[in-house]
Amino acid sequence: MRISELSRESGVPVATIKFYLRERLLPDGVLTSATQAQYDETHVARLRLVRALIGPGGLSIAAARSVIEAIENPPSSVHDLLGVAAMAVGRPAAHHDHSRVHDLMRSWGWQVDDKDCETHAALEDALRALDAAGFELPEGAMEVYVEHMRAIAAFEIAAVPNESAAAAVRYVVLGTLLIEPLILNLRRMAQQEESARRFGSVARIGDNAPE
Amino acid sequence: MRISELSRESGVPVATIKFYLRERLLPDGVLTSATQAQYDETHVARLRLVRALIGPGGLSIAAARSVIEAIENPPSSVHDLLGVAAMAVGRPAAHHDHSRVHDLMRSWGWQVDDKDCETHAALEDALRALDAAGFELPEGAMEVYVEHMRAIAAFEIAAVPNESAAAAVRYVVLGTLLIEPLILNLRRMAQQEESARRFGSVARIGDNAPE
Repeated sequence: MRISELSRESGVPVATIKFYLRERLLPDGVLTSATQAQYDETHVARLRLVRALIGPGGLSIAAARSVIEAIENPPSSVHDLLGVAAMAVGRPAAHHDHSRVHDLMRSWGWQVDDKDCETHAALEDALRALDAAGFELPEGAMEVYVEHMRAIAAFEIAAVPNESAAAAVRYVVLGTLLIEPLILNLRRMAQQEESARRFGSVARIGDNAPE
Repeated sequence: MRISELSRESGVPVATIKFYLRERLLPDGVLTSATQAQYDETHVARLRLVRALIGPGGLSIAAARSVIEAIENPPSSVHDLLGVAAMAVGRPAAHHDHSRVHDLMRSWGWQVDDKDCETHAALEDALRALDAAGFELPEGAMEVYVEHMRAIAAFEIAAVPNESAAAAVRYVVLGTLLIEPLILNLRRMAQQEESARRFGSVARIGDNAPE
């Protein structure tokens, strides 16, 4: 199909498609003349992926390109795939002393792999933000978060498709990016549900304060 | 203390403190002359809260002000507190048809309260982003997310301090904003841990593909 049809098919404007071609987010079509190229279904699928990464996924063009490159030339181990995903979606962290996070991980019996330090630094940032706000986690809260995130991760990793590396990268990156808002909103909704159940909508603050 | 001491004490520059005063994020000090005011420990504590809300919390000035107002003039029920928190931290959602989310909630046995629709719309947006990317949740995934977010919410709601409404608002808003990055990074780290455990760092893609 020509670029105009690709645009119609994908719902992405021609100017945007040209931008993606220049940015190497979309492979060139097959030239049929000096000024015309043919595109196919792989381009439609790629456009869908690019839109998801830089739209709801919120990635920069550079980060989206590194994901696309990982899909075209995937790392050979499943574990390295996750590294690519974490690198692509991670924001640069402000702190690079992760000893507190590494100590926590050891206390949970987790392996400390220096390759994954981008995520460790991000957790360190999150912990420092809590400190800076003077917000103390309730007793046992960290263990609750770890336990449930672990159960979620076990389910997710078991579901990584392994028929092809490209499918696995796609699943891991989109699963990381697009499922985050799903999880966060479910938490907020569950809090509302739980508070309605526990306090009802008429319970006053202090009703069940300690005597 | 004078504004210069407040600045030293809190680590917030004088110009920023004046900006917060103008934006009504910080209450005025007690005037001691036409050009001087006295501040106290409540101002130090408030500055810490404001910095957490608009720094790591990522709130706009307007959203931070609505949280501050809720702390100064708190709603009388615990459930309404959560509403204030959700409103303050929620981003405007793109879609306002929540019938799919309401159907899901009913299938989980959750109460559908129209007051909480901001969160429902955000979940609807998250589901549409998955659709748009052609990302199908693995079988049973939604139930796994719901189950674990519910367990987390039950723990969190049980820990809401109820000695004062201001303490409760502060806990709920900061707990929503500052714990989100904590949870998301724990999920990513748990995925890395789980994949290392399951596949080792040398497992190749396709190693355990179905025959």
